[in-house]
Amino acid sequence: MKIMFRSFVLLVCLCLSIGSVHAQLQWKEIEPGIWKATAGVPEKITLLSVANATPAKSSLQQLPTAKFPLEKNEITSRIVDGKVYLKFPLVKEEELFGLGLNFKTVSQRGRVSQLHMDHYGGKDDGRSHAPVPFYVSSRGYGVLIDAARYITVYAGTAVRVDTKNPPELMDRNTNKNWDSSPYSDAVEILVPASGVDIYIFGGPTTMNAVQRYNLFNGGGYLPPKWGLGFTQRVPTLYSQSDILREASEFEAHNFPLDFIGVEPGWHSMSYPCTFEWDPTRFPDPKGFISSLLQKGIRANLWLNPYVSPKSSLYPKVKALSGSHTVWNGIVTDFTIPEARNIFKEHFIKNHISLGVSGYKMDENDGYDKWLWPDVATFPSGTSAEQMRQIYGLQMQKMTDEWYREQNQRTYGLVRASNAGASNLPYVIYNDYYSHPDFITALVNSSFIGVLWTPEVRASKSAEEWVRRMQSVCFSPMAMLNAWADGTKPWSFPEVEKAVQEVATLRMRLLPYIYSTFAQYHFEGKPPFRSMNLVDGFAYTPQETGGKLDATLNPYEAKTRSDLKDQYMMGDNILVAPVFAGEKSRKVYLPAGKWYDFYTGKLAGENEVITIQAELEKIPLFVRDGGLIPMIPARRQAPKAGDVLPLEVRVYGTTPGTFTLYDDDGTTFNFEKGAYAKVTLTSTNKTMSAPASGKPFGYDKKVTWTFMTK
Amino acid sequence: MKIMFRSFVLLVCLCLSIGSVHAQLQWKEIEPGIWKATAGVPEKITLLSVANATPAKSSLQQLPTAKFPLEKNEITSRIVDGKVYLKFPLVKEEELFGLGLNFKTVSQRGRVSQLHMDHYGGKDDGRSHAPVPFYVSSRGYGVLIDAARYITVYAGTAVRVDTKNPPELMDRNTNKNWDSSPYSDAVEILVPASGVDIYIFGGPTTMNAVQRYNLFNGGGYLPPKWGLGFTQRVPTLYSQSDILREASEFEAHNFPLDFIGVEPGWHSMSYPCTFEWDPTRFPDPKGFISSLLQKGIRANLWLNPYVSPKSSLYPKVKALSGSHTVWNGIVTDFTIPEARNIFKEHFIKNHISLGVSGYKMDENDGYDKWLWPDVATFPSGTSAEQMRQIYGLQMQKMTDEWYREQNQRTYGLVRASNAGASNLPYVIYNDYYSHPDFITALVNSSFIGVLWTPEVRASKSAEEWVRRMQSVCFSPMAMLNAWADGTKPWSFPEVEKAVQEVATLRMRLLPYIYSTFAQYHFEGKPPFRSMNLVDGFAYTPQETGGKLDATLNPYEAKTRSDLKDQYMMGDNILVAPVFAGEKSRKVYLPAGKWYDFYTGKLAGENEVITIQAELEKIPLFVRDGGLIPMIPARRQAPKAGDVLPLEVRVYGTTPGTFTLYDDDGTTFNFEKGAYAKVTLTSTNKTMSAPASGKPFGYDKKVTWTFMTK
Repeated sequence: MKIMFRSFVLLVCLCLSIGSVHAQLQWKEIEPGIWKATAGVPEKITLLSVANATPAKSSLQQLPTAKFPLEKNEITSRIVDGKVYLKFPLVKEEELFGLGLNFKTVSQRGRVSQLHMDHYGGKDDGRSHAPVPFYVSSRGYGVLIDAARYITVYAGTAVRVDTKNPPELMDRNTNKNWDSSPYSDAVEILVPASGVDIYIFGGPTTMNAVQRYNLFNGGGYLPPKWGLGFTQRVPTLYSQSDILREASEFEAHNFPLDFIGVEPGWHSMSYPCTFEWDPTRFPDPKGFISSLLQKGIRANLWLNPYVSPKSSLYPKVKALSGSHTVWNGIVTDFTIPEARNIFKEHFIKNHISLGVSGYKMDENDGYDKWLWPDVATFPSGTSAEQMRQIYGLQMQKMTDEWYREQNQRTYGLVRASNAGASNLPYVIYNDYYSHPDFITALVNSSFIGVLWTPEVRASKSAEEWVRRMQSVCFSPMAMLNAWADGTKPWSFPEVEKAVQEVATLRMRLLPYIYSTFAQYHFEGKPPFRSMNLVDGFAYTPQETGGKLDATLNPYEAKTRSDLKDQYMMGDNILVAPVFAGEKSRKVYLPAGKWYDFYTGKLAGENEVITIQAELEKIPLFVRDGGLIPMIPARRQAPKAGDVLPLEVRVYGTTPGTFTLYDDDGTTFNFEKGAYAKVTLTSTNKTMSAPASGKPFGYDKKVTWTFMTK
Repeated sequence: MKIMFRSFVLLVCLCLSIGSVHAQLQWKEIEPGIWKATAGVPEKITLLSVANATPAKSSLQQLPTAKFPLEKNEITSRIVDGKVYLKFPLVKEEELFGLGLNFKTVSQRGRVSQLHMDHYGGKDDGRSHAPVPFYVSSRGYGVLIDAARYITVYAGTAVRVDTKNPPELMDRNTNKNWDSSPYSDAVEILVPASGVDIYIFGGPTTMNAVQRYNLFNGGGYLPPKWGLGFTQRVPTLYSQSDILREASEFEAHNFPLDFIGVEPGWHSMSYPCTFEWDPTRFPDPKGFISSLLQKGIRANLWLNPYVSPKSSLYPKVKALSGSHTVWNGIVTDFTIPEARNIFKEHFIKNHISLGVSGYKMDENDGYDKWLWPDVATFPSGTSAEQMRQIYGLQMQKMTDEWYREQNQRTYGLVRASNAGASNLPYVIYNDYYSHPDFITALVNSSFIGVLWTPEVRASKSAEEWVRRMQSVCFSPMAMLNAWADGTKPWSFPEVEKAVQEVATLRMRLLPYIYSTFAQYHFEGKPPFRSMNLVDGFAYTPQETGGKLDATLNPYEAKTRSDLKDQYMMGDNILVAPVFAGEKSRKVYLPAGKWYDFYTGKLAGENEVITIQAELEKIPLFVRDGGLIPMIPARRQAPKAGDVLPLEVRVYGTTPGTFTLYDDDGTTFNFEKGAYAKVTLTSTNKTMSAPASGKPFGYDKKVTWTFMTK
């Protein structure tokens, strides 16, 4: 009956739509600086309906006031043959960012993307692990299209005959300036759905728009402290004793280790999965987890969602699954609450109650040919296309809820995400392995409310190994994924010391990193950020190419350089990773003075500098007045109740402050106010006192180190 | 009103469809061995409605009888939310071919393609210059989905929970044979349209299915004889005197030349185009064309379809154009007859009546970001998506009609084609320039009723130059495209002789090649053919790879080798091109003895041989009993009335015959019976007499050369 009614609504809507219907969008300010409008009749399953976040209202109120950022009458919507056609204005010099987790490009203006959940295939075409239909503009606003569909975005490529800002007409025969990409003054979007909700996020800055997006989606996730330590994923068939031995090896090498990733072999069958412990490799799961926890090590279990006929879950979810199998496993329709509950019961009983701290949820993205096809059907009536776009998101939401019920934070990995995921406890990764492109993905993750790790697996050389280890230690998850290669952090003895040093540096920086994640949560600022989101950004992209080459460039296309190989970790640290083979690199320093992290020496300001790439160090720069709170070297993240000495490094000459955040590190009590925020002030070398009764894990006596002499 | 009615029908259909409707397809034999069924309510604009071919009924009747090739109840159709879901059965070991013009793969089983008109982007994913929704099976049948939509085909990738032929369940943890691509027993297809006509083409052989497809679409196009000679495309800004000088240079080098491609500079403005002669570079178009024709040389004019505001056509077609511009030109809605007529009048008056012999119709395919977006609208109501799929096809059809009205065959180039194009006078080309992949495209063109040229533009070395020239001379169009590079056939002096030799060999083979195209027309057999279409084909694909590599092959995927670097030209000649850098190559010889074309020596049978790659020769093999009719070396294709001496080369020992075809070479009179077919018989060295009064351009006295001693 319900379906009948929805069908009727859809019919009426289609009826209205055929022949194409224009309608002025009605914008309503639903949160401070966030407006919503609806075109047609939105679908029941959308990205935000699945993520189902609660806006962080009080945080949103802290942001500067924003006015509606565009001319309302320049935003148009039409419904044509049951699809929504949208148009948003663009001005000259405006740049757009986001539109999925891209690996090669940062600026999206001039590109066409069909946002389609898939394993990244080497080309920025919209197919990615996080095809988030959200973009932010350099003019300080963001646009979100909330549909779980393959949305096509023409980001300043399409030119309308009736545009008020036509590109200049040029004759390619005679005019050297002829441009194969004529100026377009619009973003046009095709949403293949009967209707859609559209959100506009105000600024005034681009960062403000990103903050509003993240806060609207609940604020960024604050990982447990252990989640920010080092993690090693072990070879796939490691038994429980192999893993305990691995933990001891890390101890022996005095190498940081906070959690271990347990790969497919823990399942009694995997590909498809049973989600049940294999009795030969894991005869005593409870004892195994306990032994790990005694060493202060958490366990994260790998899975993909496809249920094996050998699993006890199979008969329970069979009728709640889709028409097609993936690797012989059935595909549970998690849009049905009953299906989620069956999983919940199984997972809590068999894993979480034993102390399992999280999951790596693999292969919910693609590859295309291994997933269910778009002709699959699901018992809820959710289409295969919608299911594709939301599956990873739904898994994140559902597992997050289980851990919230335990009042335990989790922090895991997922290969598929989408809009609305800011407050979900997962980091994206993939099988693609270009180091430079991994860094570009890290840059791009900051625009779309997701986290990304440039995981390390293997390397062709010691140089590559240390370079990859350096950058992963300056990412949301410091991970070595040895599932297939069996690598260890010390696999290349010639760089063992340098690897150890950078992992230790990450551990020492935990107060800074944790406070940065708190900022993600409370202010919506992404912890790892594109330079385009930074105050003082004034980089001028260079156009290169444009030379005719019948084979390589028949259209004389120019390439605009993106700033894609450096990023900010929090407010103060600029990270400029070096890739194997590089002896030096250029670094763009925004306005304001910047200082070398290691020496405190002035590096430059508002300029592009060239630095020599010492093998042992990842280049880091600190902004003038930047304070960096650090703790002594340690192998594991602080536990609740620990009280640690704090060293605060001070860079530059301008007075600075830093908001140091702390809480118990593992529970959600911080959401109810059980946290401390203190202010570090360099001028008088003071730390304010934490409010009484709040968890605060640092000595009151702080060591101040003024790095810049 | 008409639109209102169509909308009503669509609504009723959608009404019926919502909630998913199954219906047994009703198959009707519409031509011998060709069955049609309809799911839902097909759209007005489809691929076949645009190509609008007349089936070659009498030729179809010559084919062996075919029974319906599949179990009817194993073909299912559902209409879900206004889209058509189709399923066709597959059996083990069955291979599928076609599904667009692929450049890297031949066998399509195990692949997902979204058939989308676009410039080929380096990946076989369905985006190509000819996204033909047609496949043929190694079991001897073909399936055509007639919708001008982005159709997604899961060619043996999707596995249904309820399949009767489930793949074997394996545990990847423990089973070395675990396969990331489990067995699928179905082709599943998503057609995003309210309905669709489906055609099944019977065998019994795969070649028979291809023949039926081509004959249903009017039979293959028979080019004018001059179209099979050599063609040079000149640099873009060449004036009429430059071009006449170029023609003289070819004379001076005694190099074949039948037609010249005149590039963008002939337009008074191009990108967007005026379709009007530039008065400075072409002050006397009529005189220019006449001068060329006096030298026996035809002119082919480059264009893309986007109309410049500077063109006299602009005001006439403005109201008949789409909502968006491409390179500042308007996009004429050629689905409107009036629009086609405006172009016709202009083109006949300004080009064709002057003696212009054809067109190169560029950039009607993509790239994506330069074309109109999918949110464009067109005055006829044809959607942007449909327009994208048909635009090149419509241009081919329309120009073909103009020439037919003149009773003059044309032969040109197009960058976008689709289903139904077999009888259209165009060869596809593109900007992509991998020599091996160009050959794979040539192989694949044979499955889908299109022609492809591996055009030569430039090369890094003399070796590459001669290798490319050799293979283009064994393709549907022997072309050097020097628009950007200004290359000449003799650009690499060290291989000038070898290039001259292969071009001359093509000219000498014209009786064979022309008869081969006649076979395309009368029998539907593609002139350049995949080995998979050849009698005696028994190649066993090798599976390679499958080794775990965390980065390069995390799913242990195996790769099946395709036979993609050799092909047949007609019934008798096997072409095995060599690529630069190769010193030797493997050649697969089907069952039956095969002989070296140049020496007549036995090369092998039903085996893979390794041959040395002499730089001066393209490896060619002739089947046992194969007859190859040849004429003396000449610079231009024979003209009507020429009577030429014929040499027939005979290979092997088995008695053989050859059907030699001839006609006037330029008109459509052959369609009314004005042609000769004579039989050459090796055993008694005879040529049958042509029927009286038929055009026949060969001496009755034939020289017989028995190549195999």
